[in-house]
Amino acid sequence: MEQKTVTLLIKCPDREGIIATLTGFFYKEGFNIISLQQYTNVREKKFFMRICLTTKQQITIGLEEKFDKLSKSFDIEWKIDYGDKKQKVAIMVSHTNHNLYDLLSKYKEGILPCEVVMVVSNHEKLRPVAEMFGIPYYYAPVNKETRNQQEAELKDLFDKNEIDLIVMARYMQILTSDFISHYPYRIINIHHSFLPAFQGANPYMRAYERGVKLIGATAHYATQDLDEGPIIEQDVERVTHESTVSTLKSIGADIETMVLSRAVKFHLNNQIIVDGNKTIVFPET
Amino acid sequence: MEQKTVTLLIKCPDREGIIATLTGFFYKEGFNIISLQQYTNVREKKFFMRICLTTKQQITIGLEEKFDKLSKSFDIEWKIDYGDKKQKVAIMVSHTNHNLYDLLSKYKEGILPCEVVMVVSNHEKLRPVAEMFGIPYYYAPVNKETRNQQEAELKDLFDKNEIDLIVMARYMQILTSDFISHYPYRIINIHHSFLPAFQGANPYMRAYERGVKLIGATAHYATQDLDEGPIIEQDVERVTHESTVSTLKSIGADIETMVLSRAVKFHLNNQIIVDGNKTIVFPET
Amino acid sequence: MEQKTVTLLIKCPDREGIIATLTGFFYKEGFNIISLQQYTNVREKKFFMRICLTTKQQITIGLEEKFDKLSKSFDIEWKIDYGDKKQKVAIMVSHTNHNLYDLLSKYKEGILPCEVVMVVSNHEKLRPVAEMFGIPYYYAPVNKETRNQQEAELKDLFDKNEIDLIVMARYMQILTSDFISHYPYRIINIHHSFLPAFQGANPYMRAYERGVKLIGATAHYATQDLDEGPIIEQDVERVTHESTVSTLKSIGADIETMVLSRAVKFHLNNQIIVDGNKTIVFPET
Amino acid sequence: MEQKTVTLLIKCPDREGIIATLTGFFYKEGFNIISLQQYTNVREKKFFMRICLTTKQQITIGLEEKFDKLSKSFDIEWKIDYGDKKQKVAIMVSHTNHNLYDLLSKYKEGILPCEVVMVVSNHEKLRPVAEMFGIPYYYAPVNKETRNQQEAELKDLFDKNEIDLIVMARYMQILTSDFISHYPYRIINIHHSFLPAFQGANPYMRAYERGVKLIGATAHYATQDLDEGPIIEQDVERVTHESTVSTLKSIGADIETMVLSRAVKFHLNNQIIVDGNKTIVFPET
Repeated sequence: MEQKTVTLLIKCPDREGIIATLTGFFYKEGFNIISLQQYTNVREKKFFMRICLTTKQQITIGLEEKFDKLSKSFDIEWKIDYGDKKQKVAIMVSHTNHNLYDLLSKYKEGILPCEVVMVVSNHEKLRPVAEMFGIPYYYAPVNKETRNQQEAELKDLFDKNEIDLIVMARYMQILTSDFISHYPYRIINIHHSFLPAFQGANPYMRAYERGVKLIGATAHYATQDLDEGPIIEQDVERVTHESTVSTLKSIGADIETMVLSRAVKFHLNNQIIVDGNKTIVFPET
Repeated sequence: MEQKTVTLLIKCPDREGIIATLTGFFYKEGFNIISLQQYTNVREKKFFMRICLTTKQQITIGLEEKFDKLSKSFDIEWKIDYGDKKQKVAIMVSHTNHNLYDLLSKYKEGILPCEVVMVVSNHEKLRPVAEMFGIPYYYAPVNKETRNQQEAELKDLFDKNEIDLIVMARYMQILTSDFISHYPYRIINIHHSFLPAFQGANPYMRAYERGVKLIGATAHYATQDLDEGPIIEQDVERVTHESTVSTLKSIGADIETMVLSRAVKFHLNNQIIVDGNKTIVFPET
Repeated sequence: MEQKTVTLLIKCPDREGIIATLTGFFYKEGFNIISLQQYTNVREKKFFMRICLTTKQQITIGLEEKFDKLSKSFDIEWKIDYGDKKQKVAIMVSHTNHNLYDLLSKYKEGILPCEVVMVVSNHEKLRPVAEMFGIPYYYAPVNKETRNQQEAELKDLFDKNEIDLIVMARYMQILTSDFISHYPYRIINIHHSFLPAFQGANPYMRAYERGVKLIGATAHYATQDLDEGPIIEQDVERVTHESTVSTLKSIGADIETMVLSRAVKFHLNNQIIVDGNKTIVFPET
Repeated sequence: MEQKTVTLLIKCPDREGIIATLTGFFYKEGFNIISLQQYTNVREKKFFMRICLTTKQQITIGLEEKFDKLSKSFDIEWKIDYGDKKQKVAIMVSHTNHNLYDLLSKYKEGILPCEVVMVVSNHEKLRPVAEMFGIPYYYAPVNKETRNQQEAELKDLFDKNEIDLIVMARYMQILTSDFISHYPYRIINIHHSFLPAFQGANPYMRAYERGVKLIGATAHYATQDLDEGPIIEQDVERVTHESTVSTLKSIGADIETMVLSRAVKFHLNNQIIVDGNKTIVFPET
């Protein structure tokens, strides 16, 4: 008990002996491997690993240095989380509140292992929701002319607060490439359709018009290509010819909340490795 | 017992009194309404009804004439099925056999209330499957040059055999507009993706490349716009980063069989009304 | 516009002409039928109908009297909602808060067409949640000895406030038969398993021990037989061998919120007819 | 290319260094680990691993001997599959044929990596299905008096044919404990309900009577406790109040085929480790 749990995410070209070498390294360094999840993309000869380690002593000192040496000879990209501080999260919203209620209540309950530092919006509308939960609310109105200025202010705000993860919980503005590239794979967006169907605006209206029999939602990392970033999680629900656009929105709201909160949890738990435009999502351990 | 069940599908502009008028008409004509399913599209002021009637005497004589008169004053489009003869079905295939096995075994079991008259293919490969089930198999090879000729022969074949419904059970050729318009809403196609995502060729490969977390299949009426006809049924299944293209195909095969056989059953049971590019699919009664 | 929408739920033995008679009656009385949903249980010769009517004038006066006469000759049980006042709802909780957050946020958003009058609990724990939303919170502690006394007080409280519907949103006490029979089909309970599997206590622990591959939740009307009342709605989610009891609870929480809020909405929209120990749930119109 | 793939399933008490030791062992023995899947049950301090290895030379000689030594010091139970011969499968059926069609067509397509050696039934009814696929059919009628005699004959038949796996594809007889214990975790049964709901006879009728809103199917290893063996796979489908018992059976048939064929595939691919009355099912690699 009172052990530290260290999580490593590893990505490298596949080669013989990689698992034995890695596990041997940590064993010799005095760690106990409490879980190891591995995926080899045989087609593309790539190797991915998530490894959770514990250690009784304070022997993590120098670990990075030693591992860095190993990692160079195997061409490994890696990311380490010492589990000693919670990620700081900013939630961005516009008008709709179902994702915000869900994220904040799950945060309050300890289901999302993070610190929600602020809610930011281009409207005043959801201030009461943030305040109900005691979370600071920043009003950051924006239009075409002021976009660069607003984003500059948001960057300042986020950087000053050391924000690790930005969650776009139905923030209905398109962020600039410049802003997005400042937070690589650190912005999660919820799109209210089953991507790649109905990219872009008004997906529920378009789903209604196309007469689909299931609707969905998709959580993905925001990249410079709108709605085309790596997909983290998706889900769908059955609808019928009787479903109006308003019914679709109401059914969709429940899918959006589930999908977004799962994706945020996967990210906070270090379950995700991004590979090109795809994600490896290891199961919770 | 030994009553006839007559099914009517009705479509018209919505107006006051339409349900009372229609139900009153059939009551006065001596029918018992055993089920009535109705859907009003309030937004577009359209009315749709599926009504199943029984009668003890042979009083269906003259029904159409009388109803036609009524229908004119309400601007009704209608379709009647006296339930006295099974629809004749032709199944078109190419290489993959899972839909064919499924449709033929369900047909043999009496789950699909129709007569499967023939299997047609542009390859010889699936002849043994059709023959296992004792269904005639027509080999109709085709290439760009011979397309019109082949389709002309198919039309002859289908018309001579009084085919009511053509089921494209992974027939991997694009039919011409001319051929399709000869069988309006009488050709059901299975597309191996969750439309409108991944229209066109190689949907499983593209799903793999996009990194989606669910894959699906869609049964729809074939129209002149490829993969854009009215959707009848869709379903999805969860996949992961570990799913190879081959795994996607294998998981997808089960979705395709379920979705296509459901759609064919809906059609044969007169549960579907087409409205523009959408379908109203009434539940089974 | 500004028309009143009246909803009738009807249950009677099936007989010839019933639909025509009913629809004719309302037509003659000057109503427009905006939707009619009907289900005939052929096996048991029972007829069920949900009918939504509008009228431009104030002609609902005397409707009940006239309909009562008709209903007697057809042995009809019926229920009418004039849509002129919102149902009053009391929510009962104990420790877990996910259903409470979900119901209150959906209520605030206008998704649940009712008036949530109070939250009642045998613990103080969730008072802050109710107060966040500005809903009065009643603390009603209970143990074996005080059960009858506590329920008597609750009955007073509910009756004084004219409560129409009691929602047990993970209230972890067993209500007495006496209390339940005071609110026939007016108490909705969420059970955290896929009934009839894992009736009774600790369903997630038992699901873990049994090694099921899906877990679920069930919303049902409370009756004198614990967890055996008419089921309104159920749903499930996939789990794996890696799911701990705690993971099951967390996945289950999302299922519980969706299932309970759907069931409450069905009830408030008059979509449900109870038939013996089963429910007919008509789709939303 | 032309490498052998060896699969090991490992189960032992959890202890420090186990992963490093195991992977190190195989590395030193000249194997390449192509996939490693591991699950630690922290609560019960148990460790499970599935490891797929390739080697270029014929160095598997002596492997078992060496590994046995290692395994003793770690208290490991293990099972090895050299991937050099297909498992031999017997399918047992009674009246219903959907599982049989599905299994045999998937077998013919190479989706089930095994050799289906025979179909056995207590009725003659499904002989034509087996014969369509060219599989020998054994008619083994049974009643209370002849049960022991019939099972003795089946045991002879299976043992003579070196049957590895028995698939009860809706075989509607209860096998004796004696018979079952002869094939530990080598008999897979499909039960037509979502276990533990509706154990025993007539699950669809009981689901209808209980008014459930989803029905399901469960594939499990047969043990001496009827319908209580380790669950391998489950799935469900939505139903409504309109679903008759016959509709439930028809919807259920599709679930049963998917669930059983997945479970059989998991078994044949060595994806399953049984732990007490539960299964660890590793994803396909």
